[in-house]
Amino acid sequence: MSTKYTIGIDFGTLSGRAVLVEVGTGREVADCVMDYPHAVIDEILPGTDLRLPPDFALQHPQDYLDVLAAVIPGVLAKSGAAAEDVIAVGVDFTSCTLLPTLADGTPLCFLDEYKTHPHAYVKLWKHHAAQPYANRLNELAAERGEAWLKRYGGKISSEWLFPKVWELLDCAPELYARADCLIEAGDWLAWQLCGVKTHGYTATGYKAIYDKDHGYPALDFFTALDPRLADVFDKLDAPIIEAGNQIGVVTEAAAARFGLAPGTIVAAATTDGHVAGPALGCCHAGDLFAVLGTSACFNLLGDEDKYVPGICGAVRDGMVPGFYGYEAGLCCMGDHFAWLTNQAPAEFVEEAKARNLPVIKIFIERAAKLKPGESGLMALNWWNGNRNILVDSELSGMFLGMNLRTRPEELMRALIEATAYGTRMIVENFETHGVPVKRFIACGGIARKDPFTMQLYADVLGLDIQIAGSTQSPALGTAIFAAVAAGSANGGYDTLLEASDAMKNVSDIVYHPNPEAQAVYDKLYAEYKLLHDYFGRGGNDVMKRLRAIRAEAME
Amino acid sequence: MSTKYTIGIDFGTLSGRAVLVEVGTGREVADCVMDYPHAVIDEILPGTDLRLPPDFALQHPQDYLDVLAAVIPGVLAKSGAAAEDVIAVGVDFTSCTLLPTLADGTPLCFLDEYKTHPHAYVKLWKHHAAQPYANRLNELAAERGEAWLKRYGGKISSEWLFPKVWELLDCAPELYARADCLIEAGDWLAWQLCGVKTHGYTATGYKAIYDKDHGYPALDFFTALDPRLADVFDKLDAPIIEAGNQIGVVTEAAAARFGLAPGTIVAAATTDGHVAGPALGCCHAGDLFAVLGTSACFNLLGDEDKYVPGICGAVRDGMVPGFYGYEAGLCCMGDHFAWLTNQAPAEFVEEAKARNLPVIKIFIERAAKLKPGESGLMALNWWNGNRNILVDSELSGMFLGMNLRTRPEELMRALIEATAYGTRMIVENFETHGVPVKRFIACGGIARKDPFTMQLYADVLGLDIQIAGSTQSPALGTAIFAAVAAGSANGGYDTLLEASDAMKNVSDIVYHPNPEAQAVYDKLYAEYKLLHDYFGRGGNDVMKRLRAIRAEAME
Repeated sequence: MSTKYTIGIDFGTLSGRAVLVEVGTGREVADCVMDYPHAVIDEILPGTDLRLPPDFALQHPQDYLDVLAAVIPGVLAKSGAAAEDVIAVGVDFTSCTLLPTLADGTPLCFLDEYKTHPHAYVKLWKHHAAQPYANRLNELAAERGEAWLKRYGGKISSEWLFPKVWELLDCAPELYARADCLIEAGDWLAWQLCGVKTHGYTATGYKAIYDKDHGYPALDFFTALDPRLADVFDKLDAPIIEAGNQIGVVTEAAAARFGLAPGTIVAAATTDGHVAGPALGCCHAGDLFAVLGTSACFNLLGDEDKYVPGICGAVRDGMVPGFYGYEAGLCCMGDHFAWLTNQAPAEFVEEAKARNLPVIKIFIERAAKLKPGESGLMALNWWNGNRNILVDSELSGMFLGMNLRTRPEELMRALIEATAYGTRMIVENFETHGVPVKRFIACGGIARKDPFTMQLYADVLGLDIQIAGSTQSPALGTAIFAAVAAGSANGGYDTLLEASDAMKNVSDIVYHPNPEAQAVYDKLYAEYKLLHDYFGRGGNDVMKRLRAIRAEAME
Repeated sequence: MSTKYTIGIDFGTLSGRAVLVEVGTGREVADCVMDYPHAVIDEILPGTDLRLPPDFALQHPQDYLDVLAAVIPGVLAKSGAAAEDVIAVGVDFTSCTLLPTLADGTPLCFLDEYKTHPHAYVKLWKHHAAQPYANRLNELAAERGEAWLKRYGGKISSEWLFPKVWELLDCAPELYARADCLIEAGDWLAWQLCGVKTHGYTATGYKAIYDKDHGYPALDFFTALDPRLADVFDKLDAPIIEAGNQIGVVTEAAAARFGLAPGTIVAAATTDGHVAGPALGCCHAGDLFAVLGTSACFNLLGDEDKYVPGICGAVRDGMVPGFYGYEAGLCCMGDHFAWLTNQAPAEFVEEAKARNLPVIKIFIERAAKLKPGESGLMALNWWNGNRNILVDSELSGMFLGMNLRTRPEELMRALIEATAYGTRMIVENFETHGVPVKRFIACGGIARKDPFTMQLYADVLGLDIQIAGSTQSPALGTAIFAAVAAGSANGGYDTLLEASDAMKNVSDIVYHPNPEAQAVYDKLYAEYKLLHDYFGRGGNDVMKRLRAIRAEAME
């Protein structure tokens, strides 16, 4: 009998990647990545000279199809595997990344009449223009004492589904009316593969206020927000399927288009932030698994139902069956560092070029020579708002402590430290509210490639940090869930635990806290908390007022 | 009879410059500038591998002599004037810029045994390591209710003479003991020219707590601070001479060395921050004259003796005879902007090179395209501490409001705006305490060369700003004072007002506030004040604690 494979396809913020995995061992046989041609659309709408409003972050769905058509044949060609030996495929995607489509799945932005309309495009997870809608939704939910609000830390983020849906309705009612479906990009891609429209439970649970025990919020909540939302559930109508379940098989048309065999099992779509657990062996209460990349997700498994304020959400069976999956995160991590490297001094750029290194390495090398506390700097890592535990996209970044000798690598170190302090706020918040952290396992580009930052995290958190073995843990996790969707009858597995045990990939690398550094960071963290609360909890709402002044200036 | 000239020699932070001026008209016939070879010594002591402690800013006195020997012959050669037609010369200098010397004027750092000793060098005005001594001095003065404290806004700055003297005594008692004289660099240079040791009244009044009505603080104040200061006035012993008075004539040796004629009149040294008034026609109550360069000085003439908290000082006849001269300033202005341009992105550096412009012009061009408030940023301009009105060198810089799209030119604009807000704090503080501002006249590189910044200042301040006609107002002011020192008997003038009327140089350029911009800046200024008071007046002393943590880290 030939070796069997699954393919996990992981759609991130800037690129999509397929990984072909051997089902028996979890060996990653081949991978293939492609950047989205349009990347993140946040300044000018493509093919127009239309300048987007502040806080917009769009994507083009054609990019996703182009990625599928490139990376699936890519991994098959690289590995030499036959399409017929792929028993199942799965897609994970950033979330909530939402697009409006016709009933047949055609995105509205594919229609000539809407090509120049920003609201016809995909709203990327980090599109933040729905903040006013999130604010009103949270106010009303609090007024009405909606029970579901507690499951989401007490606040629904502007990044999530209903604020984005309402923004669409309010800003572009004709597009809302025309949209038969409002669907997560991951579910839309799974639909393109197998012709079956579903909603993955992971995204629905974490981003669409859905719970398997209680369903969605009642319709009268939404009509109380805006009577025009009366038909919102018609546009969301589709079966909700948990990760690790089959939703259909690859159609003839999709097979021809994307290079798969017709009849290949398609698993329910999942979300890139939640799917890595089984790839890291995280299937136990107290396991905290982090995905550290452009942004940072922190997922914690608990065996009890606890209210943890300010987190993204807690969903029963949302990450791993049998556990409450608690999610929190930082709106940006790698994005922070890229902000600085994108404006690196000429000197840094030249050194990077001469040594054939990425510019970030020059920053990190120099930052690593400093001692904790030596820069005298403190940052608030809110360049993209604060996802947890303040849940406020209107917050902004801060640097404090500069003098005339302050160097760019000191600013970089302060930014890295600030993301670590933000992480510590999240970990302490979990523990304070009864969800203990027993192990910390990290995956993602920063976890794998940046020992300086990971040691700094261990020092700030006072926790051992173990590192993933795979460079592509979310894609591997998606391949593991696909193997479960296939089931043993088709050469896969019947339970997630079996699949994870056989296919996980964790390295031997563990960062242990350095007690001396930890002592300094304890002091700095106290300063961070003070500033965090002053600017984040209403001590001084200057960040919001500056946003309002900016908005007026740009009118 | 041949045309007569005076030479004003202006010693700044990074260079010294001579201007040869026609006495009858004030025409600047020639100027010559030379950078100090050692610039500001703040990292490694020259000729050693000794790393300086934080907050050190030293200079090498040989640099000053080299400048004199270059720029005096320079202006004579350029102009074709004969040394004999120069009726008087004067020196103005940054202050308090202090050096320890032997009784014959030899700087201690010229002695082989002290070449490697940082405390043997010139302490530049912006040397801030004496802050603990300033703190203790202020505490004791407050405890004892010393009357002189009020004249200096209630706080003596670490930049001034007695904190620097006490730092020398405490950190290097052997050098203090060896120093026969502790002298301002400007007075030391005048001494090198004419062989007569004096203290210029301007520096003594503003930086050494001296007042012509009350003298110095009593010796028992200093011995109460530290009994070892009992001999401090021995080391400061010299006649105190007001600006516009002769202190001697150029010696044969100095004439040979610096290219002057023996017997040329030497005027009392003054300070670069205070001397520009007569060059700008500022000889009336309500005249505010600003020198906007590396740092910013704001000098206001008043006809009454008022207590203005947080200013640098108020000295009767200190700037212009017949008026109280009120001084305030910003520790850095151009230095702020240079901090950013020194780490300019490669893109900016390349554009500057291609267009043969200084990098700052690229920043300013781009910043000028933004509307007030559009960046969403706010800064506290304390990269070099706060001179007024908080008088605290332990404060540090802040940027707030960044997002992932924030650009370097937005940071630059925020820094420029912050210096303007800091200036408005100073102006309002004068007016609140009974010293009205009637005219604002600005000189210095930024005033002359940067219309964007000056328009922004007019908008933030809501004041007309008139610009100097000379590019070298302090040097011209020094040349005017030299003409007064010469007196009419020697071809000069008998009063400052006569000299100023004949020799001043003010342009027709006036920036008027734009009411729309002013309205936005009023809102932003309110935010600045809130942050200024929170971080500057004890709401959150995080800046000081970060400094303390840094100091521990570097032990």
